[in-house]
Amino acid sequence: MIKIHEVGLRDGLQNEALSVDTDTKIDWANTLLESGVEILQLGSFVHPEKVPQMADTDLLFKSTKIKKKENQILSGLILNEKGLERALECGVELVCMGVSASDTHSQKNTRMTTSDATSRIIAIAKKARFAGKKVQVSVQSAFGCGFEGKIDYKNVLKIIRKYLENDLYNISLADTAGHAHPYQVKFLIEKIMMMDDSIELTAHFHNTYGLALANCYAAIDSGVGNFETAFGGLGGCPFTKVAAGNVATEDFVHSLNRIGMKKEIDINPILQVSAQAAEYFGKKLEGYVDKAGKIDYETEIL
Amino acid sequence: MIKIHEVGLRDGLQNEALSVDTDTKIDWANTLLESGVEILQLGSFVHPEKVPQMADTDLLFKSTKIKKKENQILSGLILNEKGLERALECGVELVCMGVSASDTHSQKNTRMTTSDATSRIIAIAKKARFAGKKVQVSVQSAFGCGFEGKIDYKNVLKIIRKYLENDLYNISLADTAGHAHPYQVKFLIEKIMMMDDSIELTAHFHNTYGLALANCYAAIDSGVGNFETAFGGLGGCPFTKVAAGNVATEDFVHSLNRIGMKKEIDINPILQVSAQAAEYFGKKLEGYVDKAGKIDYETEIL
Repeated sequence: MIKIHEVGLRDGLQNEALSVDTDTKIDWANTLLESGVEILQLGSFVHPEKVPQMADTDLLFKSTKIKKKENQILSGLILNEKGLERALECGVELVCMGVSASDTHSQKNTRMTTSDATSRIIAIAKKARFAGKKVQVSVQSAFGCGFEGKIDYKNVLKIIRKYLENDLYNISLADTAGHAHPYQVKFLIEKIMMMDDSIELTAHFHNTYGLALANCYAAIDSGVGNFETAFGGLGGCPFTKVAAGNVATEDFVHSLNRIGMKKEIDINPILQVSAQAAEYFGKKLEGYVDKAGKIDYETEIL
Repeated sequence: MIKIHEVGLRDGLQNEALSVDTDTKIDWANTLLESGVEILQLGSFVHPEKVPQMADTDLLFKSTKIKKKENQILSGLILNEKGLERALECGVELVCMGVSASDTHSQKNTRMTTSDATSRIIAIAKKARFAGKKVQVSVQSAFGCGFEGKIDYKNVLKIIRKYLENDLYNISLADTAGHAHPYQVKFLIEKIMMMDDSIELTAHFHNTYGLALANCYAAIDSGVGNFETAFGGLGGCPFTKVAAGNVATEDFVHSLNRIGMKKEIDINPILQVSAQAAEYFGKKLEGYVDKAGKIDYETEIL
């Protein structure tokens, strides 16, 4: 079964110059939850001066106005110990954190090498788990880096091995710069699956070269079940070079719906938030379904 | 081996309100040929009043200024007997023609049902072959239709069966409206390959739902070797509803280059023509590599 982790409120909004006010975020969060996405990321616990767009993350988690279904999960991203403290205080259910497989990207992001950052993230992840939280650890720039270019896949496997040694099995692979190629996705995921078949893998692609959906399907073909996507295809990484937006949640779910998959998610509320965001930011967003309209028939594949 | 049939000078330019002057077309054709694409479509032999952008197709084929390498092929599209006459007079090497699997699309395009149009196209194809020409026959709207929605795949197989009965093995499948899904591509191509494994299949995708490159890779995985793509991602169909542009030739070749495939094509000349076309039409084109820049390293996949 495929699960959607909607990250637009974090990965999307952190990338826009204009901050979204808290009431609007609450509104969008509720509409996104109505769609039936399994996990919704509300924000990141980063220093408010560094990323002012995320300054109200604690408020969002503490708000009683956000209404989720019982089986839906709210997630938050943390970058360091301080972030974890705040996340624990807010009662975040799923705490996400990660390291970059690119030393240059890691240095720019955390002032640490990949190796140092990995040790530190593992320590934080263990604390989060000890506090009873669900934990997801990620590898950013797993398929290439805007600064360094090629990332040796063995460096990615090294980080994942460390995660596994510390019983961290919920792992996300992020193509931060959007360099991934479908065959590379299959190659790397096969190598990872061979390390331990109880890994629960998540994939996160950016559409820099128009290959994001191709990469999603390559990941599905390789056995990946979880995807991080963003409404309207918002996103990008403020700390890396040339990254386009995420896969638009509505585009990915629409493509699955068309072959009878993932019909428990209704894309109408997602399209609604994308339209509201387009108006809020005063620009066209990147989603395809929004431009071309929904296709309302299913196609045969069997 | 993958072969590229560059169709931007036809499928791209026929879709722009502004006609491109003949000298500029010759210039672009020569630059595109420099890239090393295997086949270049110069235009279509359609009534000049119906599609004025293609009015100089005969002039282009007769021009002595277009310089191709010996193994490169120039193709032209024809819609009817009159078009074939003109193509023969111009000495076109590869004559392309097709029918739509959608009755509605066929009626709008040719004022004939799919069945009648198939008989007529087969008769024309035989004439072209009798005249010593290479012939490619296509099925348009093979994966869905902007007017009708779902296209029964059995209708596509029926057309292909007729082609095969008439010894027409060079067959192109066009996703005219951009409705194709990667799993549908695999499903349909498998069915077609089972009919006769000496079919030489070509695929042609539009990016209406962001799935064009995903569909190209699904087609490669299913054994398709030939792709029709257009510089700058230009294109669309003036006679159908909501179709986005073609796969940008430079995006597709760039993605192949990144894993060490198709390195005999140089995307620089293609990027150059895309930039010139963007200037000519005074708008941004859809290509991703043009926006994000080339990636200059190869990635491991083995």
